Formats: sequence, C-alpha cells, structure tokens
Amino acid sequence: MTITIKSPDGIERRIGGNSLGIIAGPCSVETREQIISIANEVKKAGAGFLRGGAYKLRTSPYSFQGLGLEGMNLLIEARKETGLPIVTEIVDIKQLELFYEVDIIQVGARNMQNFTLLRELGATKKPILLKRGYASTISELLMSAEHIMTGGNDRIILCERGIRTFNNYTRHTLDLSAVQVLKKESHLPVIVDPSHATGLSWMVPAMAKASIAAGADGLIIEVHNNPEKALSDGEQSITPEAFASLMTSLKKYAELEGKKI
Amino acid sequence: MTITIKSPDGIERRIGGNSLGIIAGPCSVETREQIISIANEVKKAGAGFLRGGAYKLRTSPYSFQGLGLEGMNLLIEARKETGLPIVTEIVDIKQLELFYEVDIIQVGARNMQNFTLLRELGATKKPILLKRGYASTISELLMSAEHIMTGGNDRIILCERGIRTFNNYTRHTLDLSAVQVLKKESHLPVIVDPSHATGLSWMVPAMAKASIAAGADGLIIEVHNNPEKALSDGEQSITPEAFASLMTSLKKYAELEGKKI
Amino acid sequence: MTITIKSPDGIERRIGGNSLGIIAGPCSVETREQIISIANEVKKAGAGFLRGGAYKLRTSPYSFQGLGLEGMNLLIEARKETGLPIVTEIVDIKQLELFYEVDIIQVGARNMQNFTLLRELGATKKPILLKRGYASTISELLMSAEHIMTGGNDRIILCERGIRTFNNYTRHTLDLSAVQVLKKESHLPVIVDPSHATGLSWMVPAMAKASIAAGADGLIIEVHNNPEKALSDGEQSITPEAFASLMTSLKKYAELEGKKI
Amino acid sequence: MTITIKSPDGIERRIGGNSLGIIAGPCSVETREQIISIANEVKKAGAGFLRGGAYKLRTSPYSFQGLGLEGMNLLIEARKETGLPIVTEIVDIKQLELFYEVDIIQVGARNMQNFTLLRELGATKKPILLKRGYASTISELLMSAEHIMTGGNDRIILCERGIRTFNNYTRHTLDLSAVQVLKKESHLPVIVDPSHATGLSWMVPAMAKASIAAGADGLIIEVHNNPEKALSDGEQSITPEAFASLMTSLKKYAELEGKKI
Repeated sequence: MTITIKSPDGIERRIGGNSLGIIAGPCSVETREQIISIANEVKKAGAGFLRGGAYKLRTSPYSFQGLGLEGMNLLIEARKETGLPIVTEIVDIKQLELFYEVDIIQVGARNMQNFTLLRELGATKKPILLKRGYASTISELLMSAEHIMTGGNDRIILCERGIRTFNNYTRHTLDLSAVQVLKKESHLPVIVDPSHATGLSWMVPAMAKASIAAGADGLIIEVHNNPEKALSDGEQSITPEAFASLMTSLKKYAELEGKKI
Repeated sequence: MTITIKSPDGIERRIGGNSLGIIAGPCSVETREQIISIANEVKKAGAGFLRGGAYKLRTSPYSFQGLGLEGMNLLIEARKETGLPIVTEIVDIKQLELFYEVDIIQVGARNMQNFTLLRELGATKKPILLKRGYASTISELLMSAEHIMTGGNDRIILCERGIRTFNNYTRHTLDLSAVQVLKKESHLPVIVDPSHATGLSWMVPAMAKASIAAGADGLIIEVHNNPEKALSDGEQSITPEAFASLMTSLKKYAELEGKKI
Repeated sequence: MTITIKSPDGIERRIGGNSLGIIAGPCSVETREQIISIANEVKKAGAGFLRGGAYKLRTSPYSFQGLGLEGMNLLIEARKETGLPIVTEIVDIKQLELFYEVDIIQVGARNMQNFTLLRELGATKKPILLKRGYASTISELLMSAEHIMTGGNDRIILCERGIRTFNNYTRHTLDLSAVQVLKKESHLPVIVDPSHATGLSWMVPAMAKASIAAGADGLIIEVHNNPEKALSDGEQSITPEAFASLMTSLKKYAELEGKKI
Repeated sequence: MTITIKSPDGIERRIGGNSLGIIAGPCSVETREQIISIANEVKKAGAGFLRGGAYKLRTSPYSFQGLGLEGMNLLIEARKETGLPIVTEIVDIKQLELFYEVDIIQVGARNMQNFTLLRELGATKKPILLKRGYASTISELLMSAEHIMTGGNDRIILCERGIRTFNNYTRHTLDLSAVQVLKKESHLPVIVDPSHATGLSWMVPAMAKASIAAGADGLIIEVHNNPEKALSDGEQSITPEAFASLMTSLKKYAELEGKKI
C-alpha cells in the first residue's frame, strides 16, 4: 500500500510502493528558530516530511516533557513556512483536536499496546505512524495495527525502531529482519528509525543505508542543529550537514532498490 | 511501606510490612454465578482480595474484551457479598468514575509507560497496583511509580509478572530477583503474579512459594472454577481447590519469613 | 533420579529425591589456608560438597585463570582433610586424568554446547554437574545432557545459573521456572546457582531460599573468607558466617518441602 | 586490517579494506557430486571462498553430525578442482592436523568461549573465522579474539550471525549494528552470516544487501543445490541460481561502498 499525503506546498508526497518517505527533524521542538531552521535544512536536503516532538513521553517525570501547545504551534508554523507535512506524537487522546493540522500522527513505542488510544485513532482520517514496542513481536505489532483498522482507518505506517536485547553498546538492537517480515505479512508501508534504535549519531548513516537495502519504505531520522545542546536525544541526532550528506548516499541506494526519494 | 485497605466487611487488610496480601480471582468476570462463587471460595481459602477483569486489554481486537460495565457491576456485587476488597484493571482514564467502588486500581503491564494514565491516577486517592512492563527495567518501573507519585498518590503496590526473554517454554520469565531489587531501591510493597509470568497453571504453586521465599509482600493469582472453559487465560488459572491447598502451604512459608497472611 | 556420592569420609551423600545437595566454596582456590579454612567452615555449617575452581574459564585472557594443577592439589588436600566430596570445573578434556580424585566434574555455562567435551565426559563414570548456558533454552540443556548420556554416563546434575536478558541490575536473570520445567521434562536432579545468577552477595540468601521453595534439589553457593580480596567473583561471594546463617534458614525451607539437607 | 589468502588457483583473495569476501557453500558436505557442483557454481557467480561443514556441532546428538573425514576430503577435492580457498569449522582441537589444507578455520558460535580451543588456534598460522556467540556481547567477542591473539595469531575475521532475543519469526535476530561497533572497536574484518541469522532463505538476499550497506567486509552464505533435501539447514539455504542473482545485486552495493567483490 502506498500512503499519499497532500502536503501544504501542494505536492503529493508518498510512502510505500516505489516512494521512499524520509522524515527528519529534531526529537523535540525547542524554539521557533530551531524548528524553522532545521525544517528548511532538511527540506533542502530532500526530506519529504518534518518530525518534531511537542508532547513528549519520558521515562522520568523529571525529564523535559516537551513544549506542549507552544511546540505544536511552532511545528505548524514550520509546516506553513516550508510546505513540509509534519509528523508528531500523540500521548493523550484528549489532545486530538490539537492535531488538526498534523499530517501524520505518531504513536510511540510505549503506547503501541495502548489499545484505547489506538481505537480512537482508528476513528480519525489521519495517517498513523505506529512504532513497534521495544519488546513487541511482529505479530503484536500487526495486532496493534488491527486495533486501529477496526475503527476504519487503514492508513498506517509501521516503524521498526529497535528492540530490547542483552546488547549494551547500542541503546536498542535494530531488527532489520522485521522490515522483511512486516512486508511479507502485511501490505502496510514499513519505515525504520535508526536514531532511536542505535542511540548513537555516528551509527545512523550506516544503519539508514542498511535499512533501505533491507527493503524499508522510508526512514525517520533525528536531525538537530546543535546536538550537544539538544534538550532530548542529542547523542543520537545528526547535524543538518550530516543529514544532507547522508541523503546524497541514500538516493543511490534507493535507486538500486528501484525506488525514489 | 504498608498499604492498608478498609474492606467492605470492616476488616483492615494490609499489604507490606509483615502482612502478605493475597489477591485471587478469575482473569475475566464472566457471569454472576462465576464471580460470586469464586469470590466465596478464595475468601474461604484465606485470600484477602478479589481480582477480576471487567475491561480487558487484549493483544488482538478479535479476542474477548471483557464484559465492561456489566463485569464491573458483578465485581462490585461480589465485593458486597463477600466483603473482600476488589482489584481490577483500568484501561482508559475516562472510565475512572466507574472505579468508585474499586479498592485497588490495577495498571497492566502494557500501560506501565502510559504516563498520561499514570499521572491521572496520581490525582486519585486509590491504591494503585502497578505491574511491571514485560520488557521494562527495574529503573523504568520505579520511574513509572514516580509518575504516579508526582500527582500526590504514593499508595503504590509494585508487581513483578514476568519479563520477555528468549525462553519459550513459559509465557514469560519470572524474575524473582526483581523482588529483592525493588525492595532495596524503594519502600513500596512488591507482589508477584506467578500466573501471568509462567502461563502454566501447574507451575503456579511452586512459583508462588518461591515468591514468598524471595521476600514478596504478596501474590496475585488467577483462580477459575472451570479453567478449561475460561474466556481468557484458562491455561494459567488454578481451580479453587488447588488454590485452597496452595494457601495451606503458603501460610507455612509466610511463617518462616515472619509474615502472616 | 538420586545421585549418590561415596564421600572420602565414608558418608554417602545424595542429590535428588528427598536429599538436598548443598555445594559451597570459593570461586577459585587461592591458597592452602584459604581452601582448607573455607572447607572446614562450610562443612561445619552443613554443606555436603566443596566447590573450588582450579582451572578457570575467564572472558578476558588477562584475568586470573586459576592456580591450575596447584589449585587441584590443594582442593584434593581439602577433600582429604574434611572428608567432603569435591566439585570442580573441567575446561579441557586433556586434563581429565587430573580429575581422578574429583567427585563431581563441573561443565561450565560456556561449555554447555562443547559437544566434544560432553561426549568424552560421557565415557567416564564421574557424576557431571552440567550448567545451563546463559542463553540456552531448556530443550538445549536437555540435549546437551543427551550428548553426555550417549557415552553411557547418566549421572548428570543440571544447574540453572541465570540467563541473559535485558535486565542490567543483576548479572544475569535467575530463571526459577527452569527448575520446574527441567524436573517435569527429565528425571535428573536440578540445582541452582544463586551466586552466578545474581552476581550480588546480598541477594544470594533470598534467592537460595526461593530456589528450595521452587523445588530445586540443591544449591551451589560461592563462599569466601574475604570476599573483598577474592581473586575472582568477590562481589557475589558470601562469608562463611553468612553461609552458616543461611543454612539454618534453608533447613526449615527444606523441611517444608519434605526434604533434608 | 585486510586478510590475504593465497588461493590454490594462485589468486590472492582478500577480506577487509576495500575487498569484500564472499564465502558460499552448503551447510554440510554431503556427496562428492554435491560439493563439487556447488563449488563450481558459487565460483562462477563470483564467490571468493567455499564453505562446507565436515564436522558438525548439532544441538541434538541424534541429528546428522557431518561426514567427518570423508567430508573433509571431499572439500579438499573441491578446493583443488575449483581453486577456491575453503572455510570449514573445527569442533575439536584434536582434529587440527586434518585442517592442514583448510584455508580459513571457522570457530562456531557455540565455541566462541571455548577458550581452550581458541588458545590452541592462536598457535597456528591459519586465519580464523570467529563467529559471535548468539548471546555474546561485542566485548565478549573481542575478548575471545584476544584469546586467539595471545597465541600470536592475529589473522582473525569476526562474524555476526544473529543473536538470541524474544523474536520468534526468525531463527535469531541479525544485529547489523554489531558490524559498525566491531569496526569501531577493533581493526579486524567483520563479515555477516545472513543464513544462520534469519534461518529463512527468502530473507537472505535482503539481509545480505543490508549487511554490505551496513559496512560489512564480507558475507558467508549457505548455498545448496537442493535445499529441500539438504541434510542440515535446508530452510535457510538458497539455490545456486538465487546466489548468482544475489551476487549481481551485491556488486552494485559494493560499488556504492567503494569496495569490490
């Protein structure tokens, strides 16, 4: 299945089929300047979608929880300015109306089995980016997609983002075989998040290329203009320059797979 | 910390300190007859609390999802008839008012990092039974308890219920070292769920005894009057007779630990 | 199956059936004084068997590799002096003749699938203590026991010693359900090693008690007279005093299980 | 580091640097006709090395254990006939002299911490293909390489072949981030075994391409002329035709990485 998004700039962007969807942006929206600047840079490098967190789910209640509504408004501003569709995470169904201008609603790994949330998202018309729980089997991920579909919404993008194993060097273990399994067992597009999977910015380019070679329909990559000062996930974010350079490589890998970015 | 619950029969029941809390009952409330009969039997055998699911979180949207409000009403009826406090799972914060007569609100493993839900439960006065996610570290479980506490509610019971590993014989792998770690790192009572951890009714008694010997403050055990016909989790439920026999053993183990049931 | 060992002091010691076998001693034999002293203390506390490593398998080639032949000779001396049967690990089949006076030959977790070694041990008459590999399923452990049995030796003691999971607080995750599974699927005695499983001396007593309650036929526990200065595994070794105190508890748990130490 | 092998056909073949080493062949040598035919086909398709098992380590003692010496002789014959260097696994150091004509000696995952074997191989001059244990950390794999190096042999090729996780669709979980970590932490060449990692022949091509994109220095792939009748590992073996087709793709991926096959 190919998911088509009518972007604010009038372009139809696609994920699936022979279209690779590249989603890029910061973990958290931090300031107007930050999000607009990153949005412009990732667009220039060829990204098709802008990501950015406004409402954050953090393991500790004492960590930065996102800018909330302010972040959402900044993201919407970046959407208008660049024309890029935006992808952001919902953490509470009560916020749904705030997501009116969001192009793709993300469900994070920790909410993959929050079936209440999934069912309510099934009643919307928005494409849903459903991330695999870090200890969920393929079958459980597909069942969670079914929870969304029971509401009538089948525009679902699945996302492999690393699983929990005994490995202690990387943050999680990227399971690229999941891409093949998901594509065999379902008709939904499957993208990969090498940033969260590895937790290590230096490893993102290699894993991004490997994801394309493994058959992924897209990528979601954390890009920050100043990773060392990022309010969240700095150690796994790449700079806009590194992203632009990666995009040049990725286009060649996409071509080998008969796909285009 | 000891959590004290004023039961409908006027007895103060405790979990923590030298009081072992034994919670027993069916996975799902199925019929009036079923829940009342099991409630009476587990009370007679010495259980201090009745469990039963009304709203169920199931991996597949096509599995039995619980009786809902009808189940809740039957559970409340069993509470009145037996005087046992009841423990049941909340799956959606919007149901909170339906939990008015529930004595302990359970947060299931899949919702352990549903921080939105946790924070709203932190604003209630009800004791919360917080189950460990099946791929969550000890530190993450404690952080989730902190999410509840930030709302002002510190009456939290932690529950080890098995983690996901490469083991394929049991449903999950019961991690009894978690009991010791949690009791060292926090002051909260810690109970064990041998039914979900193993998924095998024949193994429940041995793991229940081991849990007490490992220092647990209580147990939550699935008991069904007809496990083979149970609408959910039959293969891990023990009969009321097996439960009564187990309770006889558990009292001796409790005594060795200087605790009473 | 009960495995009977004719000890040097003339006593028949047993592991299995209603006999709990308690094996105790240091990770590594370090000096004559150390091993004799620990041997006397664990015997006095009620241990039935003395453990001690002479040839060590260490992850790093730069770690202490054991005293080798000197360690073996000291262990044999401790055997004579105390009358306790000795248990020590073989790391190379070429050393087999040096194990002439060893009462139980241990195969470590890393060698559980060293089938060459297993088959050669199958040709001996010595009881074999076969430790579960830290990522091995129950079925693989039983298959490794079969490799020994094909040589004609069925005097095998299985040992659960923790598996590798995402947990990072303890060294490994003690899988007590394995005790029940192994006893259901085979007729061999099953013991537990709480020292290696947890890697934390303060947790050993609770896990030792839980192991007995879970149905184990015995324990293997690291005891060192000066854990802080131990040449290996100090952080998981308990003192002879702690061991004596633990033994007092364990006897009561054994009694509840209808067993004796 | 680049490892150079002087092949029987006089060609110097390399693994590492800008040379991708492709090792292909059947899991087990079965008949003269089988091994010669596969050897010729994989050579024609561009493989640089022939693999084939003569001595097999099997979980069950009742499974096919390999043809032994007969298998070794057939492999040597295939070596002479095709000029391809051969790679085969050693399971017992006593067989070392039989490996006189073997070009690369493989140590399997189950023996990764058989330090006795590693140290003896460290005293040889042969390149060693060291497979990662399926529950071994990167650090443990590197320490095992150190065990070989202490004997003076530093011609070691590391191999990622899947780790054990909760995943149940694939046989193991291929951990491609390991390629990047190993190349950062050591100077040794790193290859990937997509056949054992996935256990599924249909997934081998995608994972092989992903491995190259992830920076691997080579691949080891199971190829069988009749996978359905293979005496071992049939379900993960690809046909010579599929292998030839894969090689055509791989050459393009190699080119993007600035490497050649």
